[in-house]
Amino acid sequence: MLAAARAFAERGYPAVTMHDVAELSGMTKGAVYFHYANKENLALAVTAEFYTRLPAISDAVARLSLPPVASVAELLLRTAAALRDEPLMKAGARLEIERGLIDAELPVPFDEYTTLISAWLHSARATGDLAHETPPDALARVLVSAFFGAQHLSWVVNDRTDIIERTLEVLHAVVPCTRDPRHISPYLHGHTAA
Amino acid sequence: MLAAARAFAERGYPAVTMHDVAELSGMTKGAVYFHYANKENLALAVTAEFYTRLPAISDAVARLSLPPVASVAELLLRTAAALRDEPLMKAGARLEIERGLIDAELPVPFDEYTTLISAWLHSARATGDLAHETPPDALARVLVSAFFGAQHLSWVVNDRTDIIERTLEVLHAVVPCTRDPRHISPYLHGHTAA
Repeated sequence: MLAAARAFAERGYPAVTMHDVAELSGMTKGAVYFHYANKENLALAVTAEFYTRLPAISDAVARLSLPPVASVAELLLRTAAALRDEPLMKAGARLEIERGLIDAELPVPFDEYTTLISAWLHSARATGDLAHETPPDALARVLVSAFFGAQHLSWVVNDRTDIIERTLEVLHAVVPCTRDPRHISPYLHGHTAA
Repeated sequence: MLAAARAFAERGYPAVTMHDVAELSGMTKGAVYFHYANKENLALAVTAEFYTRLPAISDAVARLSLPPVASVAELLLRTAAALRDEPLMKAGARLEIERGLIDAELPVPFDEYTTLISAWLHSARATGDLAHETPPDALARVLVSAFFGAQHLSWVVNDRTDIIERTLEVLHAVVPCTRDPRHISPYLHGHTAA
Protein backbone atom coordinates (compact mmCIF):
# COMPACT_ATOMS: atom_id res chain seq x y z
CA MET A 1 0.00 0.00 0.00
CA LEU A 2 2.79 2.40 0.97
CA ALA A 3 4.67 1.37 -2.16
CA ALA A 4 1.61 2.20 -4.26
CA ALA A 5 1.17 5.52 -2.43
CA ARG A 6 4.78 6.44 -3.13
CA ALA A 7 4.45 5.54 -6.79
CA PHE A 8 1.18 7.46 -7.27
CA ALA A 9 2.59 10.46 -5.39
CA GLU A 10 5.75 10.60 -7.46
CA ARG A 11 4.62 9.61 -10.93
CA GLY A 12 0.86 10.10 -11.01
CA TYR A 13 -1.88 7.52 -11.52
CA PRO A 14 -1.63 7.00 -15.32
CA ALA A 15 2.13 6.43 -15.27
CA VAL A 16 2.06 3.68 -12.61
CA THR A 17 1.51 0.00 -13.50
CA MET A 18 0.60 -2.96 -11.28
CA HIS A 19 4.03 -4.30 -12.23
CA ASP A 20 5.70 -1.17 -10.74
CA VAL A 21 3.76 -1.60 -7.51
CA ALA A 22 4.76 -5.26 -7.26
CA GLU A 23 8.41 -4.37 -7.85
CA LEU A 24 8.42 -1.48 -5.35
CA SER A 25 6.66 -3.48 -2.64
CA GLY A 26 8.73 -6.64 -3.11
CA MET A 27 5.53 -8.62 -3.72
CA THR A 28 4.87 -10.82 -6.71
CA LYS A 29 2.56 -9.36 -9.32
CA GLY A 30 0.13 -12.18 -8.51
CA ALA A 31 0.04 -11.12 -4.85
CA VAL A 32 -0.72 -7.52 -5.78
CA TYR A 33 -3.55 -8.65 -8.09
CA PHE A 34 -4.82 -11.00 -5.37
CA HIS A 35 -5.23 -8.05 -2.97
CA TYR A 36 -6.41 -5.33 -5.35
CA ALA A 37 -7.69 -6.91 -8.60
CA ASN A 38 -6.76 -3.83 -10.65
CA LYS A 39 -5.17 -0.39 -10.53
CA GLU A 40 -8.51 1.33 -9.88
CA ASN A 41 -8.90 -0.70 -6.68
CA LEU A 42 -5.40 0.21 -5.64
CA ALA A 43 -6.23 3.92 -6.12
CA LEU A 44 -9.45 3.46 -4.11
CA ALA A 45 -7.52 1.74 -1.31
CA VAL A 46 -4.94 4.54 -1.14
CA THR A 47 -7.72 7.15 -1.23
CA ALA A 48 -9.62 5.37 1.56
CA GLU A 49 -6.44 5.37 3.64
CA PHE A 50 -6.00 9.12 2.91
CA TYR A 51 -9.56 9.73 4.16
CA THR A 52 -8.73 7.78 7.35
CA ARG A 53 -5.58 9.80 7.94
CA LEU A 54 -7.47 13.13 7.79
CA PRO A 55 -9.87 12.26 10.68
CA ALA A 56 -6.89 10.91 12.63
CA ILE A 57 -5.31 14.36 12.36
CA SER A 58 -8.63 16.01 13.36
CA ASP A 59 -9.03 13.70 16.36
CA ALA A 60 -5.52 14.49 17.57
CA VAL A 61 -6.31 18.20 17.28
CA ALA A 62 -9.66 17.81 19.09
CA ARG A 63 -7.89 16.05 21.99
CA LEU A 64 -5.83 19.23 22.56
CA SER A 65 -9.06 21.04 23.63
CA LEU A 66 -7.91 24.33 22.16
CA PRO A 67 -10.28 27.26 21.65
CA PRO A 68 -12.21 26.52 18.42
CA VAL A 69 -10.43 29.11 16.25
CA ALA A 70 -7.05 27.75 17.36
CA SER A 71 -8.30 24.24 16.57
CA VAL A 72 -9.03 25.29 12.99
CA ALA A 73 -5.55 26.78 12.65
CA GLU A 74 -3.95 23.71 14.21
CA LEU A 75 -5.86 21.37 11.89
CA LEU A 76 -4.83 23.20 8.72
CA LEU A 77 -1.18 23.46 9.83
CA ARG A 78 -0.93 19.77 10.75
CA THR A 79 -2.62 18.79 7.49
CA ALA A 80 -0.15 21.01 5.62
CA ALA A 81 2.84 19.36 7.30
CA ALA A 82 1.41 15.90 6.57
CA LEU A 83 0.92 16.81 2.89
CA ARG A 84 4.54 17.91 2.80
CA ASP A 85 5.98 14.90 4.65
CA GLU A 86 3.82 11.78 4.25
CA PRO A 87 3.75 9.72 1.03
CA LEU A 88 0.17 8.64 1.75
CA MET A 89 -1.03 12.24 2.01
CA LYS A 90 0.88 13.29 -1.12
CA ALA A 91 -0.68 10.35 -2.95
CA GLY A 92 -4.18 11.22 -1.72
CA ALA A 93 -3.84 14.81 -2.92
CA ARG A 94 -2.47 13.71 -6.29
CA LEU A 95 -5.14 11.05 -6.86
CA GLU A 96 -7.74 13.69 -5.97
CA ILE A 97 -6.64 15.99 -8.80
CA GLU A 98 -6.23 13.05 -11.17
CA ARG A 99 -9.70 11.72 -10.29
CA GLY A 100 -10.98 12.30 -13.84
CA LEU A 101 -8.39 9.79 -15.07
CA ILE A 102 -9.39 7.06 -12.62
CA ASP A 103 -12.22 4.79 -13.64
CA ALA A 104 -13.73 4.63 -10.13
CA GLU A 105 -15.92 6.78 -7.91
CA LEU A 106 -13.70 8.71 -5.49
CA PRO A 107 -15.27 10.46 -2.46
CA VAL A 108 -16.13 14.17 -2.66
CA PRO A 109 -12.89 15.85 -1.58
CA PHE A 110 -12.58 17.26 1.96
CA ASP A 111 -16.29 16.87 2.66
CA GLU A 112 -16.18 15.81 6.34
CA TYR A 113 -13.13 18.00 6.83
CA THR A 114 -15.15 21.07 5.80
CA THR A 115 -18.03 20.02 8.08
CA LEU A 116 -15.67 19.78 11.06
CA ILE A 117 -14.13 23.22 10.37
CA SER A 118 -17.62 24.61 10.04
CA ALA A 119 -18.60 23.17 13.45
CA TRP A 120 -15.56 24.77 15.10
CA LEU A 121 -16.35 28.12 13.45
CA HIS A 122 -19.96 27.89 14.71
CA SER A 123 -18.63 27.33 18.27
CA ALA A 124 -16.23 30.23 17.90
CA ARG A 125 -19.07 32.50 16.84
CA ALA A 126 -21.19 31.33 19.79
CA THR A 127 -18.40 32.17 22.25
CA GLY A 128 -17.82 35.54 20.59
CA ASP A 129 -14.36 34.54 19.35
CA LEU A 130 -15.17 34.95 15.68
CA ALA A 131 -15.97 38.46 14.49
CA HIS A 132 -16.58 37.77 10.81
CA GLU A 133 -19.40 38.91 8.55
CA THR A 134 -19.31 35.63 6.63
CA PRO A 135 -21.50 32.81 8.01
CA PRO A 136 -19.43 29.90 9.45
CA ASP A 137 -20.45 27.39 6.74
CA ALA A 138 -19.40 29.71 3.93
CA LEU A 139 -16.23 30.64 5.79
CA ALA A 140 -15.35 26.95 6.19
CA ARG A 141 -15.81 26.38 2.42
CA VAL A 142 -13.59 29.39 1.65
CA LEU A 143 -10.91 28.23 4.09
CA VAL A 144 -10.83 24.75 2.59
CA SER A 145 -10.74 26.18 -0.97
CA ALA A 146 -7.91 28.52 -0.03
CA PHE A 147 -6.00 25.75 1.73
CA PHE A 148 -6.49 23.38 -1.20
CA GLY A 149 -5.30 26.04 -3.66
CA ALA A 150 -2.35 27.03 -1.47
CA GLN A 151 -1.10 23.45 -1.07
CA HIS A 152 -1.49 22.86 -4.81
CA LEU A 153 0.45 25.99 -5.80
CA SER A 154 3.08 25.17 -3.18
CA TRP A 155 3.39 21.66 -4.66
CA VAL A 156 3.86 23.02 -8.18
CA VAL A 157 6.29 25.77 -7.26
CA ASN A 158 8.55 24.11 -4.67
CA ASP A 159 7.28 20.62 -3.80
CA ARG A 160 5.44 22.04 -0.74
CA THR A 161 8.59 23.43 0.92
CA ASP A 162 6.70 26.65 1.74
CA ILE A 163 3.34 25.04 2.55
CA ILE A 164 3.40 26.14 6.23
CA GLU A 165 4.02 29.79 5.29
CA ARG A 166 1.27 29.68 2.66
CA THR A 167 -1.16 28.07 5.13
CA LEU A 168 -0.40 30.76 7.72
CA GLU A 169 -0.96 33.41 5.05
CA VAL A 170 -4.38 31.87 4.32
CA LEU A 171 -5.30 31.69 8.03
CA HIS A 172 -4.23 35.26 8.75
CA ALA A 173 -6.01 36.69 5.71
CA VAL A 174 -9.26 34.72 5.98
CA VAL A 175 -9.58 34.43 9.78
CA PRO A 176 -7.68 37.49 11.05
CA CYS A 177 -8.32 36.50 14.70
CA THR A 178 -5.81 33.64 14.21
CA ARG A 179 -3.20 36.40 14.67
CA ASP A 180 -4.43 36.81 18.24
CA PRO A 181 -1.98 35.10 20.66
CA ARG A 182 -4.88 33.15 22.25
CA HIS A 183 -5.53 31.46 18.89
CA ILE A 184 -2.00 30.84 17.75
CA SER A 185 -1.59 27.17 16.95
CA PRO A 186 0.65 25.13 19.27
CA TYR A 187 1.94 23.58 16.05
CA LEU A 188 4.11 26.64 15.59
CA HIS A 189 5.74 26.08 18.96
CA GLY A 190 6.31 22.36 18.62
CA HIS A 191 7.65 22.30 15.07
CA THR A 192 9.82 24.54 12.98
CA ALA A 193 7.82 26.35 10.34
CA ALA A 194 10.11 25.66 7.41
CA MET B 1 -6.47 23.76 -31.49
CA LEU B 2 -10.05 24.09 -30.27
CA ALA B 3 -10.56 20.39 -30.98
CA ALA B 4 -7.50 19.58 -28.88
CA ALA B 5 -8.71 21.89 -26.10
CA ARG B 6 -12.10 20.16 -26.06
CA ALA B 7 -10.49 16.74 -25.93
CA PHE B 8 -8.06 17.66 -23.13
CA ALA B 9 -10.85 19.38 -21.17
CA GLU B 10 -13.19 16.41 -21.40
CA ARG B 11 -10.89 13.41 -21.17
CA GLY B 12 -7.64 14.69 -19.69
CA TYR B 13 -4.16 14.72 -21.20
CA PRO B 14 -3.16 11.05 -20.83
CA ALA B 15 -6.38 9.75 -22.42
CA VAL B 16 -6.13 11.85 -25.61
CA THR B 17 -4.18 10.69 -28.67
CA MET B 18 -2.98 12.63 -31.71
CA HIS B 19 -5.36 10.42 -33.65
CA ASP B 20 -8.33 11.69 -31.56
CA VAL B 21 -7.31 15.28 -32.20
CA ALA B 22 -7.06 14.65 -35.94
CA GLU B 23 -10.47 13.03 -35.98
CA LEU B 24 -12.13 15.76 -33.89
CA SER B 25 -10.61 18.58 -35.92
CA GLY B 26 -11.31 17.00 -39.32
CA MET B 27 -7.60 17.21 -40.15
CA THR B 28 -5.47 14.33 -41.31
CA LYS B 29 -3.14 12.88 -38.68
CA GLY B 30 -0.23 14.04 -40.86
CA ALA B 31 -1.51 17.63 -40.74
CA VAL B 32 -1.77 17.54 -36.94
CA TYR B 33 1.79 16.21 -36.66
CA PHE B 34 2.98 18.82 -39.17
CA HIS B 35 1.73 21.59 -36.87
CA TYR B 36 2.53 20.15 -33.44
CA ALA B 37 5.13 17.34 -33.77
CA ASN B 38 3.80 15.56 -30.66
CA LYS B 39 1.17 15.63 -27.92
CA GLU B 40 3.45 17.61 -25.56
CA ASN B 41 3.61 20.42 -28.13
CA LEU B 42 -0.15 20.36 -28.47
CA ALA B 43 -0.50 20.72 -24.68
CA LEU B 44 2.01 23.59 -24.72
CA ALA B 45 0.08 25.32 -27.52
CA VAL B 46 -3.23 25.01 -25.64
CA THR B 47 -1.58 26.23 -22.42
CA ALA B 48 -0.01 29.20 -24.24
CA GLU B 49 -3.45 30.07 -25.60
CA PHE B 50 -4.91 29.81 -22.07
CA TYR B 51 -2.25 32.23 -20.82
CA THR B 52 -3.22 34.64 -23.64
CA ARG B 53 -6.88 34.44 -22.75
CA LEU B 54 -6.27 35.40 -19.11
CA PRO B 55 -4.60 38.77 -19.96
CA ALA B 56 -7.38 39.40 -22.49
CA ILE B 57 -9.89 39.11 -19.63
CA SER B 58 -7.72 41.38 -17.44
CA ASP B 59 -7.41 43.98 -20.22
CA ALA B 60 -11.17 44.04 -20.72
CA VAL B 61 -11.62 44.58 -16.98
CA ALA B 62 -8.95 47.32 -16.89
CA ARG B 63 -10.78 49.18 -19.69
CA LEU B 64 -13.84 49.49 -17.42
CA SER B 65 -11.82 51.80 -15.12
CA LEU B 66 -13.55 50.53 -12.00
CA PRO B 67 -12.25 51.25 -8.50
CA PRO B 68 -9.37 48.79 -7.91
CA VAL B 69 -11.24 46.54 -5.45
CA ALA B 70 -14.14 46.26 -7.90
CA SER B 71 -11.61 45.43 -10.65
CA VAL B 72 -10.34 42.50 -8.62
CA ALA B 73 -13.89 41.22 -8.09
CA GLU B 74 -14.76 41.70 -11.76
CA LEU B 75 -11.59 39.86 -12.85
CA LEU B 76 -12.27 36.82 -10.67
CA LEU B 77 -15.94 36.66 -11.67
CA ARG B 78 -15.18 36.90 -15.41
CA THR B 79 -12.44 34.29 -15.08
CA ALA B 80 -14.90 32.06 -13.23
CA ALA B 81 -17.51 32.38 -15.99
CA ALA B 82 -14.85 31.69 -18.64
CA LEU B 83 -13.72 28.54 -16.79
CA ARG B 84 -17.34 27.41 -16.73
CA ASP B 85 -18.13 28.22 -20.38
CA GLU B 86 -15.02 28.13 -22.59
CA PRO B 87 -13.39 24.86 -23.70
CA LEU B 88 -9.99 26.57 -23.93
CA MET B 89 -10.20 27.72 -20.31
CA LYS B 90 -11.41 24.32 -19.09
CA ALA B 91 -8.51 22.71 -20.95
CA GLY B 92 -5.99 25.18 -19.50
CA ALA B 93 -7.19 24.44 -15.96
CA ARG B 94 -7.12 20.70 -16.52
CA LEU B 95 -3.67 20.66 -18.15
CA GLU B 96 -2.45 22.75 -15.21
CA ILE B 97 -3.45 20.08 -12.67
CA GLU B 98 -2.18 17.31 -14.94
CA ARG B 99 1.16 19.11 -15.44
CA GLY B 100 3.08 16.31 -13.72
CA LEU B 101 1.92 13.93 -16.45
CA ILE B 102 3.06 16.16 -19.32
CA ASP B 103 6.65 15.82 -20.42
CA ALA B 104 7.11 19.57 -21.01
CA GLU B 105 7.77 22.69 -18.92
CA LEU B 106 4.47 24.47 -18.31
CA PRO B 107 4.46 28.07 -17.00
CA VAL B 108 4.04 28.72 -13.24
CA PRO B 109 0.26 28.87 -12.82
CA PHE B 110 -1.45 32.26 -12.45
CA ASP B 111 1.84 34.11 -11.98
CA GLU B 112 1.07 37.34 -13.90
CA TYR B 113 -2.53 37.09 -12.80
CA THR B 114 -1.46 37.25 -9.12
CA THR B 115 0.86 40.18 -9.88
CA LEU B 116 -1.99 42.12 -11.46
CA ILE B 117 -4.35 41.47 -8.52
CA SER B 118 -1.57 42.52 -6.18
CA ALA B 119 -1.12 45.82 -8.09
CA TRP B 120 -4.86 46.56 -7.82
CA LEU B 121 -4.81 45.79 -4.09
CA HIS B 122 -1.82 48.12 -3.62
CA SER B 123 -3.81 50.91 -5.36
CA ALA B 124 -6.84 50.17 -3.21
CA ARG B 125 -4.75 50.45 -0.08
CA ALA B 126 -3.25 53.75 -1.30
CA THR B 127 -6.73 55.25 -1.85
CA GLY B 128 -7.93 53.97 1.52
CA ASP B 129 -10.38 51.50 -0.06
CA LEU B 130 -8.75 48.42 1.45
CA ALA B 131 -8.87 48.11 5.23
CA HIS B 132 -7.09 44.77 5.63
CA GLU B 133 -4.30 43.79 7.99
CA THR B 134 -2.78 41.49 5.37
CA PRO B 135 -0.24 43.09 3.00
CA PRO B 136 -1.51 43.34 -0.62
CA ASP B 137 0.98 40.80 -2.03
CA ALA B 138 0.00 38.16 0.52
CA LEU B 139 -3.68 38.97 0.07
CA ALA B 140 -3.34 38.51 -3.70
CA ARG B 141 -1.72 35.09 -3.19
CA VAL B 142 -4.50 34.06 -0.81
CA LEU B 143 -7.21 35.27 -3.20
CA VAL B 144 -5.70 33.34 -6.10
CA SER B 145 -5.29 30.21 -3.95
CA ALA B 146 -8.89 30.46 -2.76
CA PHE B 147 -10.16 31.07 -6.28
CA PHE B 148 -8.13 28.17 -7.65
CA GLY B 149 -9.42 25.86 -4.91
CA ALA B 150 -13.02 27.04 -5.33
CA GLN B 151 -13.04 26.48 -9.09
CA HIS B 152 -11.47 23.06 -8.64
CA LEU B 153 -14.00 21.91 -6.02
CA SER B 154 -16.82 23.37 -8.12
CA TRP B 155 -15.52 21.37 -11.12
CA VAL B 156 -15.43 18.14 -9.13
CA VAL B 157 -18.80 18.56 -7.45
CA ASN B 158 -20.98 20.01 -10.24
CA ASP B 159 -18.91 20.72 -13.37
CA ARG B 160 -18.56 24.40 -12.28
CA THR B 161 -22.31 25.10 -12.24
CA ASP B 162 -21.92 26.97 -8.93
CA ILE B 163 -18.57 28.61 -9.70
CA ILE B 164 -20.01 32.16 -9.58
CA GLU B 165 -21.53 31.60 -6.13
CA ARG B 166 -18.29 30.06 -4.85
CA THR B 167 -16.24 32.94 -6.28
CA LEU B 168 -18.53 35.48 -4.60
CA GLU B 169 -18.18 33.56 -1.35
CA VAL B 170 -14.38 33.81 -1.66
CA LEU B 171 -14.51 37.52 -2.47
CA HIS B 172 -16.87 38.36 0.39
CA ALA B 173 -14.91 36.33 2.94
CA VAL B 174 -11.40 37.39 1.92
CA VAL B 175 -12.05 40.98 0.84
CA PRO B 176 -15.13 41.97 2.87
CA CYS B 177 -15.23 45.43 1.25
CA THR B 178 -16.38 43.73 -1.98
CA ARG B 179 -19.80 43.67 -0.26
CA ASP B 180 -19.81 47.47 -0.44
CA PRO B 181 -22.10 48.60 -3.32
CA ARG B 182 -19.27 50.75 -4.76
CA HIS B 183 -17.21 47.61 -5.29
CA ILE B 184 -19.85 45.25 -6.57
CA SER B 185 -18.79 43.89 -9.91
CA PRO B 186 -20.77 45.10 -12.95
CA TYR B 187 -20.51 41.47 -14.03
CA LEU B 188 -23.31 40.66 -11.64
CA HIS B 189 -25.58 43.18 -13.35
CA GLY B 190 -24.76 42.15 -16.90
CA HIS B 191 -24.93 38.39 -16.44
CA THR B 192 -27.06 36.06 -14.45
CA ALA B 193 -25.21 34.39 -11.62
CA ALA B 194 -26.73 30.98 -12.45
